[in-house]
Amino acid sequence: MKKSLIALAVLASAAGLASAQSSVTLFGIVDATVNHISNSGGASVTQLTNSGYNSSRLGFRGVEDLGGGNSASFWLEAGVNNDNGSGANTNLNNQPGAANSVGGGGLTFNRRSTVSLAGGWGELRLGRDYTPQFWNMTVFDPFGTNGIGTNLALTETSVPTAVRASNSIGYFLPANLGGFYGQVQYYLGERPNNTPNKDDGTGYGLRLGYANGPFDVAIASGRTKYLAGNADQSNIAGQWNFGVATLQAQYEWDKNTFYPGAAGANLKARGYLVGALVPVGPGQIRFSYAQYKIDAVAGTDPEAKKVALGYVHNLSKRTALYATYARVSNNSTSAIAAGGGAGNPGAGSSSNGYDLGIRHSF
Amino acid sequence: MKKSLIALAVLASAAGLASAQSSVTLFGIVDATVNHISNSGGASVTQLTNSGYNSSRLGFRGVEDLGGGNSASFWLEAGVNNDNGSGANTNLNNQPGAANSVGGGGLTFNRRSTVSLAGGWGELRLGRDYTPQFWNMTVFDPFGTNGIGTNLALTETSVPTAVRASNSIGYFLPANLGGFYGQVQYYLGERPNNTPNKDDGTGYGLRLGYANGPFDVAIASGRTKYLAGNADQSNIAGQWNFGVATLQAQYEWDKNTFYPGAAGANLKARGYLVGALVPVGPGQIRFSYAQYKIDAVAGTDPEAKKVALGYVHNLSKRTALYATYARVSNNSTSAIAAGGGAGNPGAGSSSNGYDLGIRHSF
Amino acid sequence: MKKSLIALAVLASAAGLASAQSSVTLFGIVDATVNHISNSGGASVTQLTNSGYNSSRLGFRGVEDLGGGNSASFWLEAGVNNDNGSGANTNLNNQPGAANSVGGGGLTFNRRSTVSLAGGWGELRLGRDYTPQFWNMTVFDPFGTNGIGTNLALTETSVPTAVRASNSIGYFLPANLGGFYGQVQYYLGERPNNTPNKDDGTGYGLRLGYANGPFDVAIASGRTKYLAGNADQSNIAGQWNFGVATLQAQYEWDKNTFYPGAAGANLKARGYLVGALVPVGPGQIRFSYAQYKIDAVAGTDPEAKKVALGYVHNLSKRTALYATYARVSNNSTSAIAAGGGAGNPGAGSSSNGYDLGIRHSF
Repeated sequence: MKKSLIALAVLASAAGLASAQSSVTLFGIVDATVNHISNSGGASVTQLTNSGYNSSRLGFRGVEDLGGGNSASFWLEAGVNNDNGSGANTNLNNQPGAANSVGGGGLTFNRRSTVSLAGGWGELRLGRDYTPQFWNMTVFDPFGTNGIGTNLALTETSVPTAVRASNSIGYFLPANLGGFYGQVQYYLGERPNNTPNKDDGTGYGLRLGYANGPFDVAIASGRTKYLAGNADQSNIAGQWNFGVATLQAQYEWDKNTFYPGAAGANLKARGYLVGALVPVGPGQIRFSYAQYKIDAVAGTDPEAKKVALGYVHNLSKRTALYATYARVSNNSTSAIAAGGGAGNPGAGSSSNGYDLGIRHSF
Repeated sequence: MKKSLIALAVLASAAGLASAQSSVTLFGIVDATVNHISNSGGASVTQLTNSGYNSSRLGFRGVEDLGGGNSASFWLEAGVNNDNGSGANTNLNNQPGAANSVGGGGLTFNRRSTVSLAGGWGELRLGRDYTPQFWNMTVFDPFGTNGIGTNLALTETSVPTAVRASNSIGYFLPANLGGFYGQVQYYLGERPNNTPNKDDGTGYGLRLGYANGPFDVAIASGRTKYLAGNADQSNIAGQWNFGVATLQAQYEWDKNTFYPGAAGANLKARGYLVGALVPVGPGQIRFSYAQYKIDAVAGTDPEAKKVALGYVHNLSKRTALYATYARVSNNSTSAIAAGGGAGNPGAGSSSNGYDLGIRHSF
Repeated sequence: MKKSLIALAVLASAAGLASAQSSVTLFGIVDATVNHISNSGGASVTQLTNSGYNSSRLGFRGVEDLGGGNSASFWLEAGVNNDNGSGANTNLNNQPGAANSVGGGGLTFNRRSTVSLAGGWGELRLGRDYTPQFWNMTVFDPFGTNGIGTNLALTETSVPTAVRASNSIGYFLPANLGGFYGQVQYYLGERPNNTPNKDDGTGYGLRLGYANGPFDVAIASGRTKYLAGNADQSNIAGQWNFGVATLQAQYEWDKNTFYPGAAGANLKARGYLVGALVPVGPGQIRFSYAQYKIDAVAGTDPEAKKVALGYVHNLSKRTALYATYARVSNNSTSAIAAGGGAGNPGAGSSSNGYDLGIRHSF
């Protein structure tokens, strides 16, 4: 998720509208991975994928100083599938269904498209943005919800707002609150008020945290409304930097994560993750172990366990080589693949995979 | 429609191909709006939309000095729906039908994609561009055909070339003609000559105006051919800047605007708009009143009336806050919504709405 | 295919991650053409097209110096249909079928999306890239596989990997091998290993050449696997620069180019092209003659002949006007159009066409 910043020199235009304090930044990441997944129950596949370490993207952003400590800014960031050149879809209204997921393989600013006003009072942000509950999950994950080692709890989630929400209005607390930080977000499904599903896709989330020196902890929770009920996601997560290693942990409790039409309503689920980031010379060892269990209405509760181990070798601040291995073990009613959807194993199977990749940022 | 220019510094490349006189400009607008529409007959909806004041966009343009007063230039400009990150569709051949409207929610250079040669003799421009008849309508509209206050006559129009045309060849008169200005445009539907609808999507438009000091007036007319007849749009519009206020007015006469397959052929329509822009400190009050009436073949002629009032508060030349209120009153056979298509009222209903937004340009 | 380089000034960012030796380049071409095609058997059509001289595009690329002669780089390049503002589709997995061709008219990085490591040992390149066999064909074609004069052998080819391959891993020999150059490429169809068509879309290609002063020659060959067989493309091509003219020639031998589902399996085809580029003041005359014949299983072998003549007038290094005329003559079982697919003639017909265009690069 880290990006190098490249500030493009800005000259005063003929109209004199651009000031020296303003900047527009072109930025991005191109991350390519040789990925292999094999399942105990059957299929294996070798692919060239993207975003094994950091999500591939192309973005444009800028900040304008308004004076008095205030600023205006914009951020337009598109997901790029650099293995084949296609773009990533975005979602119009936070609702499921193919008609609401648009892009068709063309570029969209699915990752973020916002305009903000900020000052000593905090930041007001409008547009498509990460949900607070996702942000808390990815920040304290050694694998940053990317690649074969991605967060197990995220893999199990399929609501459209699991990562981002469209039509959102967000507020972020200012810095310098003695270590406290936080945000609230409200997003609109944009349905007319006289329809039965008038709240479909409407929801909210919040995050509150405290960071002090080596210590950082935060709690987040969000709810998206659907015709047949709510999808709730909550988590508490944190890290402690001991110098020789940063330890990370998170605990998730979700409800009805599988929204209506999927496996069933009113499901509860619990999961946790423990991990570590260990600096080694110019590189970093990454490790995580996670469990996720769904409280099924009947029968055996589906449960998956995941272990992931990786190494990142930095050739520079912008360019890295990396390797990751991961294994998911499923119980008799669980069918989760290492790395997410691709190469889905049968229920009760284990799934193994690795990434060998290059990450280049600009 | 105004944009701040950000000239990116251009260094001579290793190949020495770029000259100091040339520039490439990255530009755009991110405009987000909390929009609410309610209709007397029923539904209301609250949305986060885009382009309430100026159309959101991302563009790339540049000019090369060819010497002798001549230049070459390009302009690639994509519409951006920054509320959800998607892009806007473009039209392949100026014809109606879903197959001709492409993009699928991905970014396209739907707003403009042109290459030009220009000199003392004027400008030759090839590609996708605004039609002259639309340009005349938007320039003299206090709300610039954007947001809840958008031009009523444009709302009533549904031909693919109402705003822009693809495959166009345009010529613009040079500046310094004593205040006279003008353009002609011809666009191709690109059908083979041995098909019954060989002219579908082919058309032309022209605009001629005169500006002198506070005074500016222009007339424009365009025709697009379809299998079952022509769609004609014409208007005359102007403004006078009195210092304390700029008054604007326009009159439109359209024919068969509802092309075959829509409400009926050979319909004639008449409309007008009067408006004002009043500078108030760092801001501007905007007002318009418009009527549009269709001369129906039988029954009561559909007629709509619209009033819009707004205020723009400039935080800087690039960033503004704005609020707009608009109301459309429909007679018994008209069903036009404030702000256009969204939240369509029943025939005879009124439609009210407002925008509260931020416009940031770069 | 030549592009002018515009290096954007790069300032050190606040985070200090960007170094002075690094650069990000925004580049592109906007090429618009008035194109007319008429066939002896019937239809004619006049269009505004794009890429008559050079392929229209918008791209972002950059190089990072890693020290020790090594570097990392990225290249994201999108095809742009500037006549109507749409983008070009890309292919997910090198397989035929509409579901694998994505973009929907939105922008994709279909032309190239790669990340590379390079050094004295050569270059490793991952992503979507040209195939070696196509590269050899376009480099030694006076019309560069663009516009009405485009390479006849390419027009006859319809495999998804005829020009580029997704999910590719490429290696390029370093420069300074005494004039020898070369590359190998392997690309993945990404099918699970337990499916009947597990190799669909997987393939490889290589190219080896030698250049010395005015002389340049290279051979290339590639194979893509499909369920019902292989599609092979091979060619040998070269040029000699005599000063007053550069002569070019190529010979192609293809097998089963029409992959299963098209005209038939196990077809063999042979073709050749001879051409010349003649500098004339600030311009260049271009000429080519080509034949292509398919060894049909039964009946008359389809055979087409093409002649193309054009002139490019450079207004600057970045901007050119051009005109091209081409004629394809088909025998009784061939139905190839001048310029490719548009305005397809009947079998045995001839097809004539011309381009009149502007090419502007940045």
